[in-house]
Amino acid sequence: MPNHVPSGPNAGLIGAPGSRSRLVTPALVLDLDAFERNLAAMTAYAREKGIALRPHVKTHKSVEIARRQIAAGARGVSAATLGEAAVMVEGGIPGVLITSPVVPPAKVEALVALNARAAGLMVVVDHPDNLAALEAAARRAGTRLCVVIDVDVGLKRTGVDSLQSALALAKAALASDALTLGGVQGYAGHLQHVADFAERKRRSIEALAPLATLRDQLRAWGVAEPIVSGGGTGTFDIDAEAGVLNELQVGSYVVMDVQYHDDVEAGRGGWRFTPSLFVAASVVSANHPGQVTIDAGHKCSATDGPLPRVTRGAPAGATYAFMGDEHGRLVFAASGHTLPLGAVVECFVPHCDPTVNLHDVYHCVRGDSLVDLWPIDARGRH
Amino acid sequence: MPNHVPSGPNAGLIGAPGSRSRLVTPALVLDLDAFERNLAAMTAYAREKGIALRPHVKTHKSVEIARRQIAAGARGVSAATLGEAAVMVEGGIPGVLITSPVVPPAKVEALVALNARAAGLMVVVDHPDNLAALEAAARRAGTRLCVVIDVDVGLKRTGVDSLQSALALAKAALASDALTLGGVQGYAGHLQHVADFAERKRRSIEALAPLATLRDQLRAWGVAEPIVSGGGTGTFDIDAEAGVLNELQVGSYVVMDVQYHDDVEAGRGGWRFTPSLFVAASVVSANHPGQVTIDAGHKCSATDGPLPRVTRGAPAGATYAFMGDEHGRLVFAASGHTLPLGAVVECFVPHCDPTVNLHDVYHCVRGDSLVDLWPIDARGRH
Repeated sequence: MPNHVPSGPNAGLIGAPGSRSRLVTPALVLDLDAFERNLAAMTAYAREKGIALRPHVKTHKSVEIARRQIAAGARGVSAATLGEAAVMVEGGIPGVLITSPVVPPAKVEALVALNARAAGLMVVVDHPDNLAALEAAARRAGTRLCVVIDVDVGLKRTGVDSLQSALALAKAALASDALTLGGVQGYAGHLQHVADFAERKRRSIEALAPLATLRDQLRAWGVAEPIVSGGGTGTFDIDAEAGVLNELQVGSYVVMDVQYHDDVEAGRGGWRFTPSLFVAASVVSANHPGQVTIDAGHKCSATDGPLPRVTRGAPAGATYAFMGDEHGRLVFAASGHTLPLGAVVECFVPHCDPTVNLHDVYHCVRGDSLVDLWPIDARGRH
Repeated sequence: MPNHVPSGPNAGLIGAPGSRSRLVTPALVLDLDAFERNLAAMTAYAREKGIALRPHVKTHKSVEIARRQIAAGARGVSAATLGEAAVMVEGGIPGVLITSPVVPPAKVEALVALNARAAGLMVVVDHPDNLAALEAAARRAGTRLCVVIDVDVGLKRTGVDSLQSALALAKAALASDALTLGGVQGYAGHLQHVADFAERKRRSIEALAPLATLRDQLRAWGVAEPIVSGGGTGTFDIDAEAGVLNELQVGSYVVMDVQYHDDVEAGRGGWRFTPSLFVAASVVSANHPGQVTIDAGHKCSATDGPLPRVTRGAPAGATYAFMGDEHGRLVFAASGHTLPLGAVVECFVPHCDPTVNLHDVYHCVRGDSLVDLWPIDARGRH
């Protein structure tokens, strides 16, 4: 993939002082100083704890960000879908782990084709039928595919539901000359947002315990360095201390959102990741006291979580409410507060992953100025 | 815009019997028989009542669908954003009305540039500052821009808040040699989903009354045939009877969604629009009794309304629950119900507009077969 050339209505603002407040909106804004701080913080933390990083691109869907994560020492990236994985491979990103089973026959074929030109590609598997389909396709393609056993650690979404099933899959993979066994995965998605830190810690340690047993058995069977992959922004510190996972699939930390910011950071011994992702919107109607209408609604911010939080450009205390697909309402906290037509405000995103997926480009800022545009390469690559 | 050439992982399935059940998923499915029934029903209704149609493309974002609406007799289309309008103009669609004020200076410039190559373009205005900006830009560009006075009929989103303000704007537009006055708009978005038909009717008639006064004044001032534009899928029949609006901005009717289906159709004298829009997803994990995991979550269906409703491919009574950004859970109604890995199921979309905006292509089906792929041209054109 060639490096991108910034285009679109905001390209002309790059480098202009104060341009952050003059963006053509709605626009997804990435604050690079905050982003880099988050990247550095997670990198330093993982290094200190001796755990590897395989950050999840389902959050940011950007080759540019994945490159920076790799440059900071990540051993690869995680991808939720085959489409995301393909975008990363085309972008030259090594070590892509696909964290959901790839099942439909057409996708299995596409996967083995991708595998032939990807360095270090891996895919999880949680069912013998799927393992057999992957093996047959890899054999037909004349490539060797690396699989990782996905273990359900309580989320009940994907993953085998018993140690016995996991061992049976592992044995089958080891017995195949078309497959390689990369290790195991267990993602405790149901625990990432448990608000109480002590409870989150207790339940996480309990949930991941079976992975240690599996890891030991894999070693006994001659798998030299099995990955034990999982974790997220809600539990990365617990996981790093617990000593079961040897790599973390953290995603949201690098941009953050209201959900993680409010739910899980309070108990975390003082330090926090920094909000770096915002939706910028403009005032398009101002005919009522106490409120204005801005040009960002359901189609600009995820609606599965909390509300977007006003962070910039509005009088203190202003709050956001959805006003349909294309609009939001800013409600002011005090009489006399107002904003003129055309004023640009920003809201911290409620839930980062599905918000990013609504946009085509990151408007990268430093301080008050737009400095670059990065494509959201895997937007819509379900 | 050239006609599209179908591509992507499902292009090879076009015309194959039974291909609807073999789609590579997740995929947005448009049932053409149901779609055409809805198109014909609204066309016939409007003709019978002597009211014009300017269907809203914010729902479907497709030039192909807009063409069919125009071919069925619509006098133009409505667009929520400048980006949508530009896509429609490039696609050769005449009579585009932009139904939200266009405010930021860069967008005003782009609007007058678009106007120079668009047949019958109109834009709403709700503030004297915006009117002045539009006029100045049109004058600089040497074009004449047609504006429509947006009147707030109770939604408190956009629109002038008094008859007096509306008349002042209308006068200013009439006095300008760079502007034309096209008429008035009033959209009662807050009433579209009022469940009780009698209440919806009473409040709609009350809300739209000021538009009649305005229309009469515009005629007295020499505007020959002012448009009086508004309405939606929830109130189109009330609006057509009430005799104030002379054109309807209906959007959702052509595809429908759970929201409209459940909220507003019950009291409507027996006839209903037909669900035509579905998200197809595949079973990717099946390790727990009573449930399977499918590959469609927050990134495939809108989350601002009700839940997606299982309509095809699953045992009777199965229900859908979101399971994160890329996954959903199908919960079966009876023990013994199950689905194999790879099975394709469909869910009727919860809220059509933001669901469409998550996808790049319509998978058009007739009966059991995929018959075409239509691009969602204005996806993401906020």
